Amino acid sequence: MISYFSEESSAEAVIGRMSKDVNPRLAEVMICLIKHLHAFAKKTRLTQEEWEYGIDFLTKTGQICSAERQEFILLSDTLGFSMLVDAINNCRPQGATENTVFGPFHVAGAPVRQMGDNINLDGRGESCLFEGRVIDLDGNPIQGAFVDVWSDNAEGFYDVQQPDIQPKWNNRGVFVTGANGVYRFTGIIPVSYPIPNDGPVGQMLGHLGRHPYRPAHMHYLVTADGYQKLVTHIFVGNDPYIESDAVFGVKETLIAPFEPICEGPTLWRAPFDFVLAKN
Amino acid sequence: MISYFSEESSAEAVIGRMSKDVNPRLAEVMICLIKHLHAFAKKTRLTQEEWEYGIDFLTKTGQICSAERQEFILLSDTLGFSMLVDAINNCRPQGATENTVFGPFHVAGAPVRQMGDNINLDGRGESCLFEGRVIDLDGNPIQGAFVDVWSDNAEGFYDVQQPDIQPKWNNRGVFVTGANGVYRFTGIIPVSYPIPNDGPVGQMLGHLGRHPYRPAHMHYLVTADGYQKLVTHIFVGNDPYIESDAVFGVKETLIAPFEPICEGPTLWRAPFDFVLAKN
Ligand SMILES: [Fe+2]
Ligand SMILES: [Fe+2]
Repeated sequence: MISYFSEESSAEAVIGRMSKDVNPRLAEVMICLIKHLHAFAKKTRLTQEEWEYGIDFLTKTGQICSAERQEFILLSDTLGFSMLVDAINNCRPQGATENTVFGPFHVAGAPVRQMGDNINLDGRGESCLFEGRVIDLDGNPIQGAFVDVWSDNAEGFYDVQQPDIQPKWNNRGVFVTGANGVYRFTGIIPVSYPIPNDGPVGQMLGHLGRHPYRPAHMHYLVTADGYQKLVTHIFVGNDPYIESDAVFGVKETLIAPFEPICEGPTLWRAPFDFVLAKN
Repeated sequence: MISYFSEESSAEAVIGRMSKDVNPRLAEVMICLIKHLHAFAKKTRLTQEEWEYGIDFLTKTGQICSAERQEFILLSDTLGFSMLVDAINNCRPQGATENTVFGPFHVAGAPVRQMGDNINLDGRGESCLFEGRVIDLDGNPIQGAFVDVWSDNAEGFYDVQQPDIQPKWNNRGVFVTGANGVYRFTGIIPVSYPIPNDGPVGQMLGHLGRHPYRPAHMHYLVTADGYQKLVTHIFVGNDPYIESDAVFGVKETLIAPFEPICEGPTLWRAPFDFVLAKN
């Protein structure tokens, strides 16, 4: 039976065109995508001009992408889509540390440092001791865990954003836990910073009356044999953007205490334990 | 009240971030878009790898766009989205000729020709007489209607796709109706052709087991003062792709008779009346 296109059966017409021997998972995802796309257009009674705006927006978003910039990830992040996909795929048992967005500023191969070392190489910012344990759900220390950390500098830039200004590997390092599961390093209290804001996504945020800032955070990538990879941050709780992270990365359990230290050269201390779930 | 991100309330968290004084229509469209995007991820339990594939697909789709190529329109077309938006915005009274996709090959400023002229300038293909009337819903002729027509050549290419091979304005022309509303020109029977198939959209069609062909059609853009702009084709009914147009442009009412002519140099005749709805 021939079924030509009509508004009523539009999604079915498209779905019906798929061959029977398409990869079943691809078929499942595409059917759901087509249904939602068509329902969106029908529900909003999308106009021709709005369609053209959307085509232009997507095209500009693709064209600004480069080796250094991924505007579609930014779009996914700012629409809460990245955090949602993370939530769907990293549902952990109660008590395990939660994931958050990976972000674009991780660099593989950061130097493995001695426990307690200072990762802040430019001497700017308020020094802070980051310490705690990597443990399992029963509270047992995990030996040999890799704690890969990175943050922005006192001006809000990651070293890779300022290759001519910051020392290489500034505010980055990898620490490997011993038998007691402890990690410890000195860095600076991170500061809030805007996500790249001069492209289509920045424009979208502007139209939606949203700011582009992320609340201050230290990034952690914690891996250990036999345990689920943990991609997370700890957040500075009194940051003005803590309730309005542009990429929705904040979770209540990831807000760390930042306590003043009254003696010695280090000003602050941020204690935080990472609890890994088994694979 | 602080509400951080969770899978349950993900869409609400993003929507809640919009400022109160956003343009109401933008807010309406974005709320619907965000809800459908999030519902799609949840329903499919989208994996991290699938998300990465999607980001990469969208990025490649944007990067292949150029002055001569619009891959996002192609994506919209092949997902039936363009035809759906057209249907939503061009719902005409019963009896009025229906719209279909505009396509990327219209060129403004084609020569206005004498009624009855031949638009086929390269002498290749099976000649065909296209004729009929431009009328209103009551059957009255419309004088001064512009009938802008264009088709591919006998090899399936529009002149703009082969600027070095085809004569300029080959298989194109504009005809202006007189008091009787009649239009008439000679062209060739159009042939089916593939949409651009060497990019991400072509790859998608391949994965879905779909071919990239459009059934043969003559394009019409019919405009007249006081009437709705008509963007349409007439289709060759016995085309092998008539039931599987890659962009879902076929409507039953747009299939024209192509009748053999037994005498004279012209081989075929395609009679078709265009019925315009008032503005
Ligand atoms: Fe960051
Ligand atoms: Fe065409």
